[in-house]
Amino acid sequence: MTSETASKDCLGWAARDPSGVLSPYSFNRRAVGSDDVSITITHCGVCYADVIWTRNKHGDSKYPLVPGHEIVGIVKEVGHNVSRFKVGDHVGVGTYVNSCRDCKYCNDGLEVHCARSVYTFNAIDADGTITKGGYSSYIVVHERYCYKIANDYPLALAAPLLCAGITVYTPMMRHKMNQPGKSVGVIGLGGLGHMAVKFGKAFGLNVTVLSTSTSKKEEALSLLGADKFVVSSDLEQMKALGKSLDFIIDTASGDHPFDAYMSLLKVAGVYVLVGFPSEVKFSPASLNIGNAPLFRFKS
Amino acid sequence: MTSETASKDCLGWAARDPSGVLSPYSFNRRAVGSDDVSITITHCGVCYADVIWTRNKHGDSKYPLVPGHEIVGIVKEVGHNVSRFKVGDHVGVGTYVNSCRDCKYCNDGLEVHCARSVYTFNAIDADGTITKGGYSSYIVVHERYCYKIANDYPLALAAPLLCAGITVYTPMMRHKMNQPGKSVGVIGLGGLGHMAVKFGKAFGLNVTVLSTSTSKKEEALSLLGADKFVVSSDLEQMKALGKSLDFIIDTASGDHPFDAYMSLLKVAGVYVLVGFPSEVKFSPASLNIGNAPLFRFKS
Repeated sequence: MTSETASKDCLGWAARDPSGVLSPYSFNRRAVGSDDVSITITHCGVCYADVIWTRNKHGDSKYPLVPGHEIVGIVKEVGHNVSRFKVGDHVGVGTYVNSCRDCKYCNDGLEVHCARSVYTFNAIDADGTITKGGYSSYIVVHERYCYKIANDYPLALAAPLLCAGITVYTPMMRHKMNQPGKSVGVIGLGGLGHMAVKFGKAFGLNVTVLSTSTSKKEEALSLLGADKFVVSSDLEQMKALGKSLDFIIDTASGDHPFDAYMSLLKVAGVYVLVGFPSEVKFSPASLNIGNAPLFRFKS
Repeated sequence: MTSETASKDCLGWAARDPSGVLSPYSFNRRAVGSDDVSITITHCGVCYADVIWTRNKHGDSKYPLVPGHEIVGIVKEVGHNVSRFKVGDHVGVGTYVNSCRDCKYCNDGLEVHCARSVYTFNAIDADGTITKGGYSSYIVVHERYCYKIANDYPLALAAPLLCAGITVYTPMMRHKMNQPGKSVGVIGLGGLGHMAVKFGKAFGLNVTVLSTSTSKKEEALSLLGADKFVVSSDLEQMKALGKSLDFIIDTASGDHPFDAYMSLLKVAGVYVLVGFPSEVKFSPASLNIGNAPLFRFKS
């Protein structure tokens, strides 16, 4: 047992009620177990899920609630069985911090789909404690749920990859979108959409951003490097795009019609939905929503 | 020019109005061109599309209308450029008889998606004539739209493969369902569903038939060899099937909810819709509906 568990030495920001206000909060993390890694958190992405549970939108918030699941930082201590990390490594932790480690999903590297996966905050962990997220000074996790970040990669930029990034990267890889010369349409340019544009360009795709207004045109074309920007309410532009796309990633949240977008796909094209529906009943496994600005923990 | 064009020597069954009644009808086929094959039709599948257009359900029926697009028969004459067929060959013709032969879809063997594909009956062919289908004594088609059938394969059994068969076979192959040991659910046991069960078993899949009643249980298990039969309204049976299927082929026509079926898929499973929606606006390219009993032309 380290000295860390003796006092409430983890400093966080917690919601105490659904008001949306976060305030300083000190708490304990568990002792660093033999398979655990303890991480000094340098940055944490702000995801809309943080807002949802902070405000108890699903009625299951457990206060005090420390949000945050796009966590990056530096390893400060490792358990004696830990083989993949050493003190000083740059690492990240995403949306889950535990799972059964024995089912087909765990064995296939799809732990997020494990029936016993444990969400990074506001969830009941295997030991009965309530998980507390990355709006805090450090975290202790089993090394299995910790990911190496290259030392020369800016930690602030890495954080959103842990949820928003993987949410678009996973279907892009599953559906073989990493084929240079193919085309992708990205609907919506929020947290997920801008990741999809950047992955798309990195994969060598021709990227078209579809948005409901021109307000994000400059960001799409100049900042993110999209090849084309189309206003989805412009029937002429949409018609010109007909049957031209190999892939579409729809990041728009809320219920919305797909028909006009579907007609943009080539035959046998792939349409991927990653946006949040308007009515939500979900488990941590389906927590796949976008990120917002970075939360930076000031210790 | 052959003698065939000199008189109305093609004997067919035609609808004259939307009553649904077919009556004998004699008409001409075009002369056998240099790339054409002339086929004595022995059998033609009866597809619900024949009923739809016979009864002018879409308002575009051109009477007299000779239905039929699951055509099999024996080659009786070939044009001088024809290389793939000879007189006496057993062949089939499906849902289209022409296309541009120059676009990306034609080049990829996806002629049915060509913008200039011509449906086998009730369509305007490139020469301005109205196509007439397989409820007739013979047909003349460009050899490109003609398919070889093994001489020892019963022609009567081959006919339904030309529309119902390809409609389920194509998505099964596109989504790599030919993997022995994987599992498929087949929703609905009509023309398409029974084909899906047979292909599934031929691919070595574990096949579960999902139906709204038990009326087709015996057919599914004993006649078609399905491994399991589940009544979709039985919540216990459905629950037991949860997250167990790699693939689902939904052949049910009409609008119907998918949620209960979606929950039967494993993570990253594939759900294929091939049924007809209740409201239809479609081109020949989307003509993908089931077959019914065989029509046998008695000449």
